[in-house]
Amino acid sequence: MVAFSQASSRKPNFDRLSIFLAGAVSAFSVVFLFSTFDLIRMVSQQKPCNQPESPLDLQFDPLISSFYDDPSFGYTMNKSIKNWDEKRHAWLKLHPSFEPKSQERVFIVTGSQPAPCSNPAGDHFLLRSFRNKVDYCRIHNYDIFYNNVLLDPNMRFGWGKIPAVRAAMMAHPEAEWIWWLDEDTVITDIEFKLPLYRYKDYNFIVHGWPKEVYEKRSWVGLNAGSILIRNSQWSLEFLEKWTDMGPSSPNFDKWERILLKVFRHKSTDQTALAYLLYVEHIKWSWYGKKMFIETRYYLEGYWVDIVDTLTNITYTYLEIENKPGMRMLRRRHAEKVSEGYGMLREALLKDAGYDEFGRWRRPFVTHFAGCQPCNGKHNVSFTRDRCRDAMNKALSFADDQMLRNYGFVHRDLYDSSVVSPLSSI
Amino acid sequence: MVAFSQASSRKPNFDRLSIFLAGAVSAFSVVFLFSTFDLIRMVSQQKPCNQPESPLDLQFDPLISSFYDDPSFGYTMNKSIKNWDEKRHAWLKLHPSFEPKSQERVFIVTGSQPAPCSNPAGDHFLLRSFRNKVDYCRIHNYDIFYNNVLLDPNMRFGWGKIPAVRAAMMAHPEAEWIWWLDEDTVITDIEFKLPLYRYKDYNFIVHGWPKEVYEKRSWVGLNAGSILIRNSQWSLEFLEKWTDMGPSSPNFDKWERILLKVFRHKSTDQTALAYLLYVEHIKWSWYGKKMFIETRYYLEGYWVDIVDTLTNITYTYLEIENKPGMRMLRRRHAEKVSEGYGMLREALLKDAGYDEFGRWRRPFVTHFAGCQPCNGKHNVSFTRDRCRDAMNKALSFADDQMLRNYGFVHRDLYDSSVVSPLSSI
Repeated sequence: MVAFSQASSRKPNFDRLSIFLAGAVSAFSVVFLFSTFDLIRMVSQQKPCNQPESPLDLQFDPLISSFYDDPSFGYTMNKSIKNWDEKRHAWLKLHPSFEPKSQERVFIVTGSQPAPCSNPAGDHFLLRSFRNKVDYCRIHNYDIFYNNVLLDPNMRFGWGKIPAVRAAMMAHPEAEWIWWLDEDTVITDIEFKLPLYRYKDYNFIVHGWPKEVYEKRSWVGLNAGSILIRNSQWSLEFLEKWTDMGPSSPNFDKWERILLKVFRHKSTDQTALAYLLYVEHIKWSWYGKKMFIETRYYLEGYWVDIVDTLTNITYTYLEIENKPGMRMLRRRHAEKVSEGYGMLREALLKDAGYDEFGRWRRPFVTHFAGCQPCNGKHNVSFTRDRCRDAMNKALSFADDQMLRNYGFVHRDLYDSSVVSPLSSI
Repeated sequence: MVAFSQASSRKPNFDRLSIFLAGAVSAFSVVFLFSTFDLIRMVSQQKPCNQPESPLDLQFDPLISSFYDDPSFGYTMNKSIKNWDEKRHAWLKLHPSFEPKSQERVFIVTGSQPAPCSNPAGDHFLLRSFRNKVDYCRIHNYDIFYNNVLLDPNMRFGWGKIPAVRAAMMAHPEAEWIWWLDEDTVITDIEFKLPLYRYKDYNFIVHGWPKEVYEKRSWVGLNAGSILIRNSQWSLEFLEKWTDMGPSSPNFDKWERILLKVFRHKSTDQTALAYLLYVEHIKWSWYGKKMFIETRYYLEGYWVDIVDTLTNITYTYLEIENKPGMRMLRRRHAEKVSEGYGMLREALLKDAGYDEFGRWRRPFVTHFAGCQPCNGKHNVSFTRDRCRDAMNKALSFADDQMLRNYGFVHRDLYDSSVVSPLSSI
């Protein structure tokens, strides 16, 4: 731009300069017609250098083509994509306000069936468990998308997560990770952050027990209710492989036979996932090395193992907070700066058992697998009341961690409706 | 570009067309550069001058005392606060990452009763209407808090919003505005942004008809289902006044009598609100001038007036998008940059009727007042089926605006479960 001004200023011939400028003005006019929006924004956004920039620029989408402008691009599984990593990278370069911390950006996807639940209090539980996830997002500045439409009529139940995750990857190139959470999960440690720094060599994380999957070939050796998948070309191909085993695929019957033989269980999204991990683990290929079974914390935890421990955990955390010198942990603060206090507490949890059984650490995600809160067809090994009480308890346990930021606390974890004001520090 | 400028300055014998073209190409190059990196923004982003600004710092809470450290501070109505504006300002100074655009920061509060709904599909509707509000927040980067506990046992039903809003103000000093939305509202224009720039002289905004409130003294001359209140000392005092008229106050009976006399209606939060506006309007005091009845758009709109217009509005918006030269409106983009496209569309809606009746503009907030989706005790003037169909239609209408960012659309607004992939642009 400077060079352009100098060049034009050296021209003594005003005719030529006029013609040159006429061309320039014409071109500007043409561009203005097509990109009024960008230009207006450019002008209106002029601000001096010393003002802090706004965090994300939600209004800036330059005219330069990105993958969205390619007519062959689509959000559905049948629209195969190549070079997604490069395309995402190019999009980020075009949207510089989204670049800082983009490696840590997590986008949560969850969802449930489109119709009302047949179980009377089913939707009430879904509402509260969605609220719980939104609470988590508010504290960690994550975005969340709740899908309750059938994106692919042939991909129902657990399979439905695949088209939802795929569409979210396309709609959110700013997110490095997509975290799928089943509707019957509750985030029971609101402060805990996904330890993404551990996953730099991985693209797909699921909670489970490697021995159960790799040696015993058990389809319950992992749980597909909470999975973390990198927004990457690898993941798109992984989702394609996974989909190929599902009910929308012409190969479904073939895979059904294989799964019954190898994993002794009918085809579900989870059996197929366990099989994929098992097969790739055997090969120990570059591809398989990108998948990881997390054992060190409850990326997903079975409620039956967890719910009875919650009361004791509450007391233990309170005890720590009330110790001399721990005043900072009780310090009141704005909800948006809660993460710092979580980190402070983290340092005191070294002995809490940072493993799958949690001991006295707050479990990260409690999964009400088998309770089937929406259709009510719970596993016969427990009653509907037991499920209801456990869900109430887990939700109140989680709510208390958030509600303290608003000055309130449940006096009884089983009675989720009644809260009392917290006394001052 | 530099090379080109030098070339043009060294060659005196270009014919006129060449010079014209040279000007045009230069201008295109300049625009290209602007569009690519938004030069002005690039310059302003230099800090000290080449590091992109970090987003919100969620982990930084300095040790310097803020109002949270004052033992007399509390989140409940009975903990009176003085000098809140100064205290909020001091908090922002201590948390500089929250300062940029803090004047535009909106925090949404909504909520419903703690118990499951008695109406069978009630919680299903609440779930979907919460999802709708979360969708809105994702696009505009707002935070949202869904309260489903009873913060004050004496403040039930409509009165319950007061302690929730008050607690949210305390917990979110970073937010300039609290926007309360009833659980039976649907945001039916996902792109529309609250026109905060119009409210710089006001602290409290509600939708209504001034004549109905100020002259006819009608309690339905406004609607308390969607209110915007500035996070300020004024507002705290306003909430105290409002609370003094409510069921938790020793003055409740006195106010009940006054409301029956002046507004010919029993005491509800909305009657009390209408009375407060009426009285302060008569006084025309500094205090009263801070309250504003919005008539120019549907900050809240009655579903009966709205739902039948939605199909035509869908077609009219589609018509505009499909006109020659409107390709930009159909351009696919990341969900997070949707706001810019909303602004682009806004410029084309000048004739849509920017008033309370909307004509063919998407209504901003559709309120299912009288449908009582949770307890099912709907107004006798319409049937449960009519309410259900209308809620389904409004939710699908809103969902479509969001779902297009994921590549899908409802083919039938009355069937909320079925969607189809959008064809490419």
